[in-house]
Amino acid sequence: MASRFQKLRQLVRQRRRLHQLGECTIALDAMGTDHGPEVLLEGAFLAVTQYPTLSVICTGPQGRLRSILRHHGWQHPRLHIVDAPEVVGMHEAPSDSLRKRNSSVAVAARLVLENRAQGMVSAGNTGATMATTLLMWRTLPGISRPAISAILPHPDRPCVLLDVGANVDCKPRHLLHFAIMGSVYSRYMFYRRHPKVALLSIGEEETKGNELVLAARELLAETNLNFAGNAEGRDLVKGKFDVVVCDGFVGNIVLKFGEAVVEFIIESIKQEVQKSLVSQLGAVAMMPALRNFKRQVDYAEFGGAPLLGVRGNCIIAHGSSHAKAIKNAIRVAAEMAEAHVNDHIVEAMRENGLLKGAAEAHGRLASVK
Amino acid sequence: MASRFQKLRQLVRQRRRLHQLGECTIALDAMGTDHGPEVLLEGAFLAVTQYPTLSVICTGPQGRLRSILRHHGWQHPRLHIVDAPEVVGMHEAPSDSLRKRNSSVAVAARLVLENRAQGMVSAGNTGATMATTLLMWRTLPGISRPAISAILPHPDRPCVLLDVGANVDCKPRHLLHFAIMGSVYSRYMFYRRHPKVALLSIGEEETKGNELVLAARELLAETNLNFAGNAEGRDLVKGKFDVVVCDGFVGNIVLKFGEAVVEFIIESIKQEVQKSLVSQLGAVAMMPALRNFKRQVDYAEFGGAPLLGVRGNCIIAHGSSHAKAIKNAIRVAAEMAEAHVNDHIVEAMRENGLLKGAAEAHGRLASVK
Repeated sequence: MASRFQKLRQLVRQRRRLHQLGECTIALDAMGTDHGPEVLLEGAFLAVTQYPTLSVICTGPQGRLRSILRHHGWQHPRLHIVDAPEVVGMHEAPSDSLRKRNSSVAVAARLVLENRAQGMVSAGNTGATMATTLLMWRTLPGISRPAISAILPHPDRPCVLLDVGANVDCKPRHLLHFAIMGSVYSRYMFYRRHPKVALLSIGEEETKGNELVLAARELLAETNLNFAGNAEGRDLVKGKFDVVVCDGFVGNIVLKFGEAVVEFIIESIKQEVQKSLVSQLGAVAMMPALRNFKRQVDYAEFGGAPLLGVRGNCIIAHGSSHAKAIKNAIRVAAEMAEAHVNDHIVEAMRENGLLKGAAEAHGRLASVK
Repeated sequence: MASRFQKLRQLVRQRRRLHQLGECTIALDAMGTDHGPEVLLEGAFLAVTQYPTLSVICTGPQGRLRSILRHHGWQHPRLHIVDAPEVVGMHEAPSDSLRKRNSSVAVAARLVLENRAQGMVSAGNTGATMATTLLMWRTLPGISRPAISAILPHPDRPCVLLDVGANVDCKPRHLLHFAIMGSVYSRYMFYRRHPKVALLSIGEEETKGNELVLAARELLAETNLNFAGNAEGRDLVKGKFDVVVCDGFVGNIVLKFGEAVVEFIIESIKQEVQKSLVSQLGAVAMMPALRNFKRQVDYAEFGGAPLLGVRGNCIIAHGSSHAKAIKNAIRVAAEMAEAHVNDHIVEAMRENGLLKGAAEAHGRLASVK
């Protein structure tokens, strides 16, 4: 548990960062989400209203987006629209989505490539977002596979879990890269000085794990990371580690299972409560406490999952995001750009001798921050 | 959701089964658990008191067990003790445990081998229990790897998840065997006529999954099981499937994570509630509802995880089990013996053409039920 003082210091730092947030533009793929573009545009409006130096460019069918903004009175001088006539469906195959060169996600990614935006947010088809950014931006030097990183909630110590779905079959060196990326993210986004990194496995002992984990363990022990060995499933919610690494198959199952368990418990308690009047009155009295709890585990506070390993800042928001989550995702994308997370990843790769040549490191990176 | 009628019918069947439970003896490894042998002996005493045709043989250091029984007044004509002077530590390597031929777990397994007991329960070192039963009993014909099966709670449809830790690196044919064993268990223990079987993966589409899942999918499609494709992490608590199959690495992480999430949520709500008097009063009013909920997700109701695939009935109880969980584990071991689950597994293997020769099927099986 962090002391009150540590918490306060963290809060002060975060506040300072938000005030210092320089001029920054984020592209928002305004199509996708389960709730339609309204939610996304409302999130964008909330973001520009709350952060005085932030601009947002929404991409999508111009006419439709404009009429929504007009209808709700969400016009703002720092809220722009760039036309993207095509839309990628939620269940479209990534390879098909790449053919739509004027889709909302492709236009958003292009804005980043052309440096008209410093980052992007998408709540649409995750596969399409990954394929588009990967093709257009490429990976960071030395990194062969990008990873989606979920932020698991904890009152004192959020945990970066990666990969949660980008790569189903991984090699040990991929887990090594994930560990480096997660460690940099935790350090520059959550101010953990020496992020504690662990491999997700089935026991703490170093002999425990499958072939992948055992091989990755050897690689991780040779890095300059604060590598702490294995994490068990139960450690993910206990605030023991800052970064937990796994392949995308395990990560995705764990993440979806966790979400469902939280829903299941809340739903079960609700049903039980409704069975008696006394319970219902009790629930009313407990409401503020329950609301506080919900805020603690609400992924919306973290805004979304950063896609790490590509040459650009991309936040993948949950398909069921509401406006607040989108606003936070936009803020996180801006903070990622400000914190130069990608530059620090390249630096960390170099420190660990994982860049093949200096040429690669200095290549295309300068063009995309 | 099962209808009220279905639920009622299920209840009637279960009641009938308990009344019909014939003469049956279960061996209980009375050492292990985080709470010491008292809890185990109390569980055994509760079991013989509640079930009139059940006998329990507790194995462990005779003097110590006897004095505990005497001290608490837990003597009963159907509660026996067989001396086992050696004890396997919770963190001892399975290979070391095998050297202790008179450990509580080895003596319990030998009682089953000699047909003096029809099943056993252990809450001790899981690795040692597996190694001992595997060495002494061997696997069922055609099965190369036994699997630990967790029962995930659901108000209408408990889900058998296997493997949850016996095998970290699996081949597709192992998942196939797990599916057959889980299906038989669900059918004969939970009365699901055509248990719906799924593979744990990262999406419902048949192209989603890692290499292992994709290969296992093809094998499963050729069986006579009610195979329903892929299950996602979120489906595990939604009552969509009766059996979900995965390798022991994924299963173990998911299980431990789930337990921790439930604890985390209950703990967080408790902490929030304690912050205000009104909330505390509310919590008191909600108590019966919360207690009902807790019963729903309490693994103790299911008593433990059956170890499927060995030639004998073995229930692995949780290390933190209390007396009630032990009592239920003993009941489940007896029910497994009564339901001839292992015979039905062999039958299902034969139906699916997975027995190499009839000789193997008729070999040692007759000696151990």
